[in-house]
Amino acid sequence: VAKRLEKFKTTIFTQMSILGNKHGAINLGQGFPNFDGPDFIKEAAIQAIKDGKNQYARAYGSPDLNSAVASRFHQDTGLVVDPEREVTITCGCTEAIAASVLGLINPGDEVILFAPFYDSYEAMLSMAGAKVKCITLRPPDFAIPLDELRAAVSSETRAILMNTPHNPTGKMFTREELEVIASLCVENDVIVFSDEVYDKLSFEMEHICIASLPGMFERTVTMNSLGKTFSLTGWKIGWAIAPPHLTWGIRQAHSYLTFSISTPMQAASVAALGAPESYFTELKRDYSEKKEILVKGLKEVGFEVFPSSGTYFVVVDHTPFGFENDVAFCEYLIKEVGVVAIPTSVFYLNPEEGKNLVRFAFCKDEETLRGAVERMKLKL
Amino acid sequence: VAKRLEKFKTTIFTQMSILGNKHGAINLGQGFPNFDGPDFIKEAAIQAIKDGKNQYARAYGSPDLNSAVASRFHQDTGLVVDPEREVTITCGCTEAIAASVLGLINPGDEVILFAPFYDSYEAMLSMAGAKVKCITLRPPDFAIPLDELRAAVSSETRAILMNTPHNPTGKMFTREELEVIASLCVENDVIVFSDEVYDKLSFEMEHICIASLPGMFERTVTMNSLGKTFSLTGWKIGWAIAPPHLTWGIRQAHSYLTFSISTPMQAASVAALGAPESYFTELKRDYSEKKEILVKGLKEVGFEVFPSSGTYFVVVDHTPFGFENDVAFCEYLIKEVGVVAIPTSVFYLNPEEGKNLVRFAFCKDEETLRGAVERMKLKL
Ligand SMILES: CSCCC(=O)C(=O)O
Ligand SMILES: CSCCC(=O)C(=O)O
Repeated sequence: VAKRLEKFKTTIFTQMSILGNKHGAINLGQGFPNFDGPDFIKEAAIQAIKDGKNQYARAYGSPDLNSAVASRFHQDTGLVVDPEREVTITCGCTEAIAASVLGLINPGDEVILFAPFYDSYEAMLSMAGAKVKCITLRPPDFAIPLDELRAAVSSETRAILMNTPHNPTGKMFTREELEVIASLCVENDVIVFSDEVYDKLSFEMEHICIASLPGMFERTVTMNSLGKTFSLTGWKIGWAIAPPHLTWGIRQAHSYLTFSISTPMQAASVAALGAPESYFTELKRDYSEKKEILVKGLKEVGFEVFPSSGTYFVVVDHTPFGFENDVAFCEYLIKEVGVVAIPTSVFYLNPEEGKNLVRFAFCKDEETLRGAVERMKLKL
Repeated sequence: VAKRLEKFKTTIFTQMSILGNKHGAINLGQGFPNFDGPDFIKEAAIQAIKDGKNQYARAYGSPDLNSAVASRFHQDTGLVVDPEREVTITCGCTEAIAASVLGLINPGDEVILFAPFYDSYEAMLSMAGAKVKCITLRPPDFAIPLDELRAAVSSETRAILMNTPHNPTGKMFTREELEVIASLCVENDVIVFSDEVYDKLSFEMEHICIASLPGMFERTVTMNSLGKTFSLTGWKIGWAIAPPHLTWGIRQAHSYLTFSISTPMQAASVAALGAPESYFTELKRDYSEKKEILVKGLKEVGFEVFPSSGTYFVVVDHTPFGFENDVAFCEYLIKEVGVVAIPTSVFYLNPEEGKNLVRFAFCKDEETLRGAVERMKLKL
């Protein structure tokens, strides 16, 4: 294995899903719904396949999908973007991150991350040879330590890679936090990679896209995907929205990483992004109910549950149960209790910082959520 | 844009397709069929979508598809591979190349390429920081200059990146050539990345998979995809077959480049790979007819046409028409004649070497092929 990947292991999501399957555990680990996406999107995919939309799409996206992404972004943020020069369709948000980092970061460039971070961020930054500086978000509220951030950002900083709503914690960056990030970026000429795949799953406050702050569009790559919003995580359609000078680098990397993305699934994504506002309202309502069931249950089980304002995840402290660390707890949980959760220590540069925290996903039907809580009540 | 991508332009396929569309030209440039893939595969995709196979697939491939790839490979080569430890499903062969190179090549590693080469090879090697050595295959037969190859490979060499049947030339590596490569690799402990996406489009001789030569499986990554064999280039399903110690690096890179691949399309790929032998025989027969039409036509137009034994491409020398180079010729061809071909100079480290050569694709229906020839006869 190449040195750039030496320190990384099989992703924790894959590890836990495999172990969970082996033990017949209820999977509240990896973030995928156990219910299906909407029929109107599936029908659009089926129609595209039947209509023979089965050859290479344009490398940076089918024209219709680039337009649909731009107009969705306009509705969500008020920003007007050029679908032809500022949108790139990718193989899920994962590839949007990979292409942005490989396309825009040079070896030795300093990049700031917030821990806990989604695991691909660190791996991709390592693949690009970036120098990572990490700011830790701490429970109970996972607020950004703004003084630490101010001390960390300098003219040496090339980029900040951020995620709001934030996986794994469910924290949403507040307007004040985003304004501090924005002013540091403008002052120090820093670009932002912003993973906003959970933007439609915001419960307690409104999601704010950092690109919409003054002076930020020209230095921001906003990344999103179909999977979470439309309960179709297996379709792997994502995108990156960025001004032309950043889009150029992203498209160059994308051209050689994957070249182009599934043509029929792009056609279906056009239908998805045209969903009426009621779709998003219902989605939020459904997820609020699921969240309430899980949060209430986890509290009854005896966890300290930290507030989650967005995403379909919630983080708890497992200390009351007396395990040495998050990994030991999660192994016991799978093998003896029959529930999969995700240990969080892999999401920190210093694993010690995550050793009390584990993440549960509530993108599951009510019965599954209640079943998992029941098992924990019985056996923890 | 990051330095690792600075020297690269928009891929030539994208450039030519866009220019061709603008001028209403017949597209014999980018290699995609203008006919549809088989119904039984499309139906399998539709069924998978209806059946709710729409959430994340396992990162390295849906178990069924890993097995189907292994058993297809067994039928084709006689080699027995472990679907769980030696197969990785990727976003087309393009991602198989990207993940193999990023997963296994370190900065400064020496890698040997044959020119003309598919453009992503050089770009990915640059992204990995490899030191590229290039051996040029020359018309009329594009045979490997074996003495040059022997002189190039040493204990300093980490890998050879090869492609047979070979795009753009249509050359197929002979058993003798493959044996020389194999013995050099075994002697010098070199690994091979072998892109064999046109293996089912071999007309004049049998395709030989280099992994099947003695001592080679343990040092070879064999890459292939659904697109060419099943006329579904837009589905973007590919794979890499390699021994576990190489698969580890490939999977690590893949985990962070794209994570996992379209679940319903993987289900459909299982159906595709189970096609009866008659499917492959008919495919070959159909393509032989198309090839004959185009080759005959190009000769009548006045090109020197080089023999193509595999792929759906044929390379010609445009010198008889008096243009300065391949790019000037292709621009004239699109704008004044109404036909798209691909200039080959971008497929060489030294563009001069390709300046007389252009590539035509014959993965089009007969009418299109005849129409293109007609236009050239009239206007060249
Ligand atoms: C890409 S696998 C992980 C899915 C996910 O978003 C999560 O579980 O955090
Ligand atoms: C991935 S786009 C290019 C398609 C192709 O294989 C070719 O035209 O050479």
